[in-house]
Amino acid sequence: MAIITLTTDFGQKDYFAAAVKGAIYNELDDVRIVDISHCISPFHISEASYIIKNAYKSFPKGSIHIIGIDSELTPENKHLAVLLDDHYFLCANNGILSLLASEIKPEKIVEINIHDKIETNFPVLDVFVKVACHIARGGTLDVIGKNIQEIRYLKQIEPLINSDKNQIIGHVIYIDNYGNVITNISRKLFENIGKGRQFTISARMVTFNKVYETYSDCINFKIEKDKRGEEDGKKLAVFNSAGYIELAIYKSNPLTVGSAASLFGLQNRDTVTIKFEAYASKDRKAEL
Amino acid sequence: MAIITLTTDFGQKDYFAAAVKGAIYNELDDVRIVDISHCISPFHISEASYIIKNAYKSFPKGSIHIIGIDSELTPENKHLAVLLDDHYFLCANNGILSLLASEIKPEKIVEINIHDKIETNFPVLDVFVKVACHIARGGTLDVIGKNIQEIRYLKQIEPLINSDKNQIIGHVIYIDNYGNVITNISRKLFENIGKGRQFTISARMVTFNKVYETYSDCINFKIEKDKRGEEDGKKLAVFNSAGYIELAIYKSNPLTVGSAASLFGLQNRDTVTIKFEAYASKDRKAEL
Amino acid sequence: MAIITLTTDFGQKDYFAAAVKGAIYNELDDVRIVDISHCISPFHISEASYIIKNAYKSFPKGSIHIIGIDSELTPENKHLAVLLDDHYFLCANNGILSLLASEIKPEKIVEINIHDKIETNFPVLDVFVKVACHIARGGTLDVIGKNIQEIRYLKQIEPLINSDKNQIIGHVIYIDNYGNVITNISRKLFENIGKGRQFTISARMVTFNKVYETYSDCINFKIEKDKRGEEDGKKLAVFNSAGYIELAIYKSNPLTVGSAASLFGLQNRDTVTIKFEAYASKDRKAEL
Repeated sequence: MAIITLTTDFGQKDYFAAAVKGAIYNELDDVRIVDISHCISPFHISEASYIIKNAYKSFPKGSIHIIGIDSELTPENKHLAVLLDDHYFLCANNGILSLLASEIKPEKIVEINIHDKIETNFPVLDVFVKVACHIARGGTLDVIGKNIQEIRYLKQIEPLINSDKNQIIGHVIYIDNYGNVITNISRKLFENIGKGRQFTISARMVTFNKVYETYSDCINFKIEKDKRGEEDGKKLAVFNSAGYIELAIYKSNPLTVGSAASLFGLQNRDTVTIKFEAYASKDRKAEL
Repeated sequence: MAIITLTTDFGQKDYFAAAVKGAIYNELDDVRIVDISHCISPFHISEASYIIKNAYKSFPKGSIHIIGIDSELTPENKHLAVLLDDHYFLCANNGILSLLASEIKPEKIVEINIHDKIETNFPVLDVFVKVACHIARGGTLDVIGKNIQEIRYLKQIEPLINSDKNQIIGHVIYIDNYGNVITNISRKLFENIGKGRQFTISARMVTFNKVYETYSDCINFKIEKDKRGEEDGKKLAVFNSAGYIELAIYKSNPLTVGSAASLFGLQNRDTVTIKFEAYASKDRKAEL
Repeated sequence: MAIITLTTDFGQKDYFAAAVKGAIYNELDDVRIVDISHCISPFHISEASYIIKNAYKSFPKGSIHIIGIDSELTPENKHLAVLLDDHYFLCANNGILSLLASEIKPEKIVEINIHDKIETNFPVLDVFVKVACHIARGGTLDVIGKNIQEIRYLKQIEPLINSDKNQIIGHVIYIDNYGNVITNISRKLFENIGKGRQFTISARMVTFNKVYETYSDCINFKIEKDKRGEEDGKKLAVFNSAGYIELAIYKSNPLTVGSAASLFGLQNRDTVTIKFEAYASKDRKAEL
């Protein structure tokens, strides 16, 4: 059964997402529609880029992903159908596939030109649904547009590495439901540059010298629970399940005790810097 | 496959919506359940009326729409099953179909009387699910209640037109996820009364002399992007995808830069007035 | 068709829930996934316990319920697969099944040991999805873990009864979407202890001497609507659809007029006390 996913900034209350689903069921009876998220912050391209990159991978090959963020068609914001990693992505050419396409080269990029009228203020319904159903029925990308070579990339979504290769300057790209702060520094980049060296991660007034594998790695379970003291609220850096360095609070709750974002005073686009020691000192490491 | 949609004020957290879905799957294996919205403001009839009117149209004919807002059965709030535009609507007789039924006459209205006990505080689960599954299995409306002639209409959901036909007094019926302000003045009414005349739309301190077709119509793409100045945050009136006049901010975000609702100081039920010139002056139009 | 439900604290925005769904569809084509809730307060075990207890019952026997709250595997937080009331529950052994298992004895409890690596910070995706799909395909619990005898219970989730049996001390376990306040005092307990005696329910400064069957029971519909005075905002105690005593405001809206929680000043864990008269006075009852 064909799968069509939806990632939008429509929110949970409006009729938009339901209208899109109704329209798909009107065209196809044998289809599965899955909401990825309708709660992307309005027009927030980098947030959407992070969500779509980490959600799509779990879905079966051939899935069709509609991305309805900043998708109004303008002379500067064309509609795309992209085949990448054997998944289809329908979105505006506004940089929303940056995180994804910077790691995996698109197999095919088509600029959609089936618009019989350019004027619609609901392009997801009027354009992407038609294209998605066309693909779900086995249609090819060639008949719905013209091939292009490059998609647009979002500036500043990639961290900077200095020429001495001992510093990574990244930034915050996402705050999750627990208020944890996700950076754009991937484990892969961290390991490639760091090569096992000691390091300090700094973000505003907070620093970290270790990146844990899981959240509870920061807890010493050998000490009995009653003697361990307060653990909820402990700060840590962790490689999150998306493979990025995340600054977190153990068992945080943004609405009650606070979260990494509120307690560290961090928000989207804030800078996170990692400084590595000038050389890998195995001896010193053993010492510590 | 039968489609049953859900529109409620249950919210996203509670077990209510899930219990309803479980109960439907318990009765029917071959059915598709689609959430329209569970985030209608509690007991907000006009909001629900707007959402259901604009969502149902996309769904296939024969779809069954459960509306769980203010649905407790009382002597003054009977349960209805309504066939309208070849769709089925199950709801309380509290005015919730006003916007819909003011445009399309219901084919059949039945007052549900299958309640074996009148006392339930979960009527969607205990009454509407049973009726919906009955209809989904091909059952008729006649066996679940008695025919009635009229549904209840919500007062003040229709705009007022003055006797000179040069003024429409409408009001705000909905604030969307982008904080844009939707009025109850439809494009159809606007064009019927205005007949091409010039006009001024006023709402509190803000006025508009043009209604755009799409949001980005307010941007002049002939000027290069760098030279256009700040466009995000531009105010505009637009015919929205529901066919109503909407007062909007270009690329607004209620949580950061603000929105039409917050910047114009508008909320539900606030008045929006359109004054038309006394006669259509084609010459003057050309002048301006 | 197998049904897998999801109850988590992932929130509505993140990619987590979608990744889980994609992974299930990747393993099984013929499965139905139903969201119970992704809005449980982060790490809030008793809230989840209340939601799952009241949602699962509507679903067909054999349904598989994944509960992703506080589910990181630690030496103190093992993963369970529990068969109870002919439903399967996959969760951490953190007390989350307390409300459920205190009423119905589990048929089988298995401590999951299929983890090939203990380190994952996305156990719902990496462990529960695998187990759920195994069960959905008809697999037995025995091959995915070892039998254990007892699950962990949450302290303080049960109300206290004094030795004279004329007082119940309960507490608030949940605030619903309408801001109504749900206690852990069930109708069954109330009736068993009260045996028809008169009573006073106290919570902070607010008291109640009656528990209604439905919300609108507190309204006298024999008086004409115009003469009844303001009814919205009336306070009442009611047996809610989950079978618990709930302190409510008639037609409340937490975002506008306020709610039981805000107006009574009640929040999670606050105490709610019921005092019964020393003996059942039928005469006095008739008098009043």
